[in-house]
Amino acid sequence: MSTKKGLFLTFEGIEGAGKSSNVQYVKQLLEAAGKDVVVTREPGGTEVGEHIRNVLLDPDLPAMHSDTELLLMFASRAEHYQYKILPALQGGQWVLCDRFTDASYAYQGGGRSIDMERIRRLESWVLGDFKIDKTLLFDLPVAVGLSRAKARSAADRIEQEEASFFEKIRQCYLDRADAEATRFELIDAEQSIENVQQQLDKAVAVLLENAG
Amino acid sequence: MSTKKGLFLTFEGIEGAGKSSNVQYVKQLLEAAGKDVVVTREPGGTEVGEHIRNVLLDPDLPAMHSDTELLLMFASRAEHYQYKILPALQGGQWVLCDRFTDASYAYQGGGRSIDMERIRRLESWVLGDFKIDKTLLFDLPVAVGLSRAKARSAADRIEQEEASFFEKIRQCYLDRADAEATRFELIDAEQSIENVQQQLDKAVAVLLENAG
Repeated sequence: MSTKKGLFLTFEGIEGAGKSSNVQYVKQLLEAAGKDVVVTREPGGTEVGEHIRNVLLDPDLPAMHSDTELLLMFASRAEHYQYKILPALQGGQWVLCDRFTDASYAYQGGGRSIDMERIRRLESWVLGDFKIDKTLLFDLPVAVGLSRAKARSAADRIEQEEASFFEKIRQCYLDRADAEATRFELIDAEQSIENVQQQLDKAVAVLLENAG
Repeated sequence: MSTKKGLFLTFEGIEGAGKSSNVQYVKQLLEAAGKDVVVTREPGGTEVGEHIRNVLLDPDLPAMHSDTELLLMFASRAEHYQYKILPALQGGQWVLCDRFTDASYAYQGGGRSIDMERIRRLESWVLGDFKIDKTLLFDLPVAVGLSRAKARSAADRIEQEEASFFEKIRQCYLDRADAEATRFELIDAEQSIENVQQQLDKAVAVLLENAG
């Protein structure tokens, strides 16, 4: 579909896994290696997408239907993909994205029990045959992640869910990593910041070697 | 899918066709015949849907991608269908809806040239095999409609489009009415209010007779 020149890397994991700060760390590593890097996030990443994000995460709105939530996620993703991700990749930039389609499978599929096949139909509607180059999955026990997230800020609508909701999400992420072992790189996010950064140093070195 | 007891009527047409005031007129006719009636609209119709509507119609946002627009329309529709329309119909109420799926075909398909088959795939994702009982199409020349709409209020983002955009929409509506002549009832909306109301009196009389 695209004539992509840059690489597309996604960062996944439950709340409190440290994705956001580690995206910045990976950005520095890649820039030190001379790459032109764009950092972005989902839901959001564009002006329209940030407005959609506000609807998705507003703790004052009533609980929305799971179909609505999934369609909003993919609406934000369509805007993001068409207007930001694809142009950057075609221009040779490396794109680091904090959450992408795997999060829809994990949160709406694993967490809210939307049929995975229905998610696949929407993914194909929005992205065609577009492929992610590498996904860094920051994995850690739910209790550790939630206590880190709580220490950081007030809970948004999705973070207010029960721990069992996040257990299902974590399991779905691990199942996906198992099924696509080449695309996924598992990062043990329970470790110290220094240890996690060492894991990232290795993963990025391999990426850079393969990218030539 | 549903065990629907009430009837589902949709009101379609370009800007300035008089849908909103005629919805109220039809509501009065049905209530005078003893029906329990709910009036609603798209995009919107629910609290979450109204927030989505604000994103869709905000004239200060940059032009969104046509895929994004369509996904937002269907996100609002999913919420509306699952939480308002379907429960009302199952409870025996008649639901009058100012715009529904035909508007997605007309505006995003006819107006923005999204492939009709892609719209059908989203319709099926959101609504399964749900069917509209009757669609009143308020048809009038684009110039007449736009001049009526302008007299009424400031233009929203969609109303700011060129006249040629609305010509394509009108034609798409007429094509759909032609293809599904049993479901559609064409109302000549260029006529006087009295004349339009007479057309509606007749259409509602037939509906009530058939509903028994």
